[in-house]
Amino acid sequence: MCGVSKHSVRGPLEGLLVVDFSRVLAGPFATVMLADLGARVIKVEKPDIGDDSRAYGPFLGERSMYFARVNHGKESIALDLGLPADLAVARALIARADVLVENFRPGVMQRLGLGPDAVLAAHPSLVYCSISGFGHTGPWSQRPAYDAVVQGMSGIMAITGSADGPPIKPGSPVADLSAGLYAFGGICAALRSGRGTHLDVAMYDATVSLLEGAALAWLATGVDPGRIGNAHFAIAPFDTFACADRDITICAANDLLFGALCTTLGLPAVLRDARFATNVGRHGDREVLKGLLEGALRTAPAAHWLTVLEAAGVPCGPISGVAEAVGSEQSAVRQMVVDAGGVPVPGNPVKLSAWPDAGWRAAAPLLDEDGPSLRAEFGTP
Amino acid sequence: MCGVSKHSVRGPLEGLLVVDFSRVLAGPFATVMLADLGARVIKVEKPDIGDDSRAYGPFLGERSMYFARVNHGKESIALDLGLPADLAVARALIARADVLVENFRPGVMQRLGLGPDAVLAAHPSLVYCSISGFGHTGPWSQRPAYDAVVQGMSGIMAITGSADGPPIKPGSPVADLSAGLYAFGGICAALRSGRGTHLDVAMYDATVSLLEGAALAWLATGVDPGRIGNAHFAIAPFDTFACADRDITICAANDLLFGALCTTLGLPAVLRDARFATNVGRHGDREVLKGLLEGALRTAPAAHWLTVLEAAGVPCGPISGVAEAVGSEQSAVRQMVVDAGGVPVPGNPVKLSAWPDAGWRAAAPLLDEDGPSLRAEFGTP
Repeated sequence: MCGVSKHSVRGPLEGLLVVDFSRVLAGPFATVMLADLGARVIKVEKPDIGDDSRAYGPFLGERSMYFARVNHGKESIALDLGLPADLAVARALIARADVLVENFRPGVMQRLGLGPDAVLAAHPSLVYCSISGFGHTGPWSQRPAYDAVVQGMSGIMAITGSADGPPIKPGSPVADLSAGLYAFGGICAALRSGRGTHLDVAMYDATVSLLEGAALAWLATGVDPGRIGNAHFAIAPFDTFACADRDITICAANDLLFGALCTTLGLPAVLRDARFATNVGRHGDREVLKGLLEGALRTAPAAHWLTVLEAAGVPCGPISGVAEAVGSEQSAVRQMVVDAGGVPVPGNPVKLSAWPDAGWRAAAPLLDEDGPSLRAEFGTP
Repeated sequence: MCGVSKHSVRGPLEGLLVVDFSRVLAGPFATVMLADLGARVIKVEKPDIGDDSRAYGPFLGERSMYFARVNHGKESIALDLGLPADLAVARALIARADVLVENFRPGVMQRLGLGPDAVLAAHPSLVYCSISGFGHTGPWSQRPAYDAVVQGMSGIMAITGSADGPPIKPGSPVADLSAGLYAFGGICAALRSGRGTHLDVAMYDATVSLLEGAALAWLATGVDPGRIGNAHFAIAPFDTFACADRDITICAANDLLFGALCTTLGLPAVLRDARFATNVGRHGDREVLKGLLEGALRTAPAAHWLTVLEAAGVPCGPISGVAEAVGSEQSAVRQMVVDAGGVPVPGNPVKLSAWPDAGWRAAAPLLDEDGPSLRAEFGTP
């Protein structure tokens, strides 16, 4: 419909108008992806303090990097949705929007008169995306949720860590981020049809969908798979392995790669061992196999093995810290850090040849920075 | 363009034809999302053994659940792309496709004469999506990669685990899955423009983009954040906490929730403590704060605290195993397990009111199951 971004990011979503009632992480992460691909995103915030995440560090001067990472390139308007005049402004924004995103607890938008049924009845081609902890249906729909709550309840903590240690939360907020990614893709998919719809994305569903091999193991056997350290639930050898000085990853995910691995390590007897002839066999006896492989790997440092294994085409790598990863030459070439109005933020992994990444973004808005101009543009008294 | 799915899944992508050269996980995961939303997906496999993941367990009879989970609802054709006759079939499929997906090492499609430049020159409205370990540019582009290699190099293992323990791989293959999700969203976004493009998604970029607070902490300070257990890189209290019998998660991500938490635990002095007046203060002194909160929590079992905290609106939850999570009533209501031709597989988190989920999927294809009919339909001699 209407709307050219004042921020002039080019991308396949140019011309798309998104009105974004979402806060903190999952919703703003979905809409910053839309903004990065050319959409115009108008962020509606509560007056006075705005999005809670404006108070989350780290800070650069007074600017929250947490907030900037998922809100750069958006416009901000502060609205008290309990006040009729402000609610009218919200309705005027929605009337011209292609996409609405919100991540309130299920029921909150309804109580404001902005629930999906009412809004879609008035605007039948709108894509109305709700993101919540547990979804808009089911016995847990009213449970309040943040990332760690959902990670704990989804099973992903129960499958992270060693068999004899406690459950561990992945260091990334994968419940929020995976929900945001499903919302991003779901919104774009729905837009293609031209037909309006309510999109109901739950952080819980999203995280459960990531369990992969662990979920399949339970579905196959009815036995909870528990934790298996850094090993893989279906493939072996596919794990971390100790060299003389430190651990590396090795993933020999088919017979050819397993052959190349054994040959490179000088272990022809392991390659000939009938127990290890197939992936199923290797996975069943993966602890024995790991011991045999480490017997060779411990004779030389990681740097040696990474060089010779890479030369042999065996997938392997170091275990890098954040500085090495985010600060790598690969990250730089891939523009995985960009400048957003003076604040460094992660780049966009969606690299499109038809719309080369400029390598910078407009700053995240101050609270209500665009309020006056938006009230004028959307013509409410 | 052409193509009604023989599997009659309804969704916003009906009428879309996807030719899928991808194998194992990241690519097939992206295209199964497209299939679940109505696209017709034709999977091109190498003859004899097909996709490597047909050999990955768990198995139900002879059927790989790993393969079924990301290939249900697709058609399969076996092609040896080194043979001119089979390559001609591939070209005929591409000529009528809206989307091409591949996840070979960068350069492989070029050597087959199917690289993005050549294909896009002939088919300028095609969305050509490549997924690779490190992307098609940069010094690491030729490194072979599987999920664990990328997890190790992206920094996500370095931020998972306790400060005094080793790096730990999240139990989910997040490098593959996040790349697949970015590809899914990027493909749908690109389709909206009607303009062809090469989409270059790297598992490395995708995983680096998940580091969130840990990446921001390094960007802010230049100091590698390391591991902080189950705590959050920006918010406190937001962690696991010990009760009398076991741990629970609690996320009090703003002042209001922190107040409700302290009141419920009977800790008015903690609430009044100036160190904990803001999120920044609470995060800075989070270990002290955790000790004070656990002092109260350890006096009663987890079940008690979950009940009273939930009643007070404080986000909290148990740490559930895979059986409790995937087998929950919430998962059932949300159709997070569906039947794919007799094999249970995870459901689709993209829930669209306009296209209700049927709760079942067509089976994953046998190798070359649709080869004869596809050769006839696409009319190659």
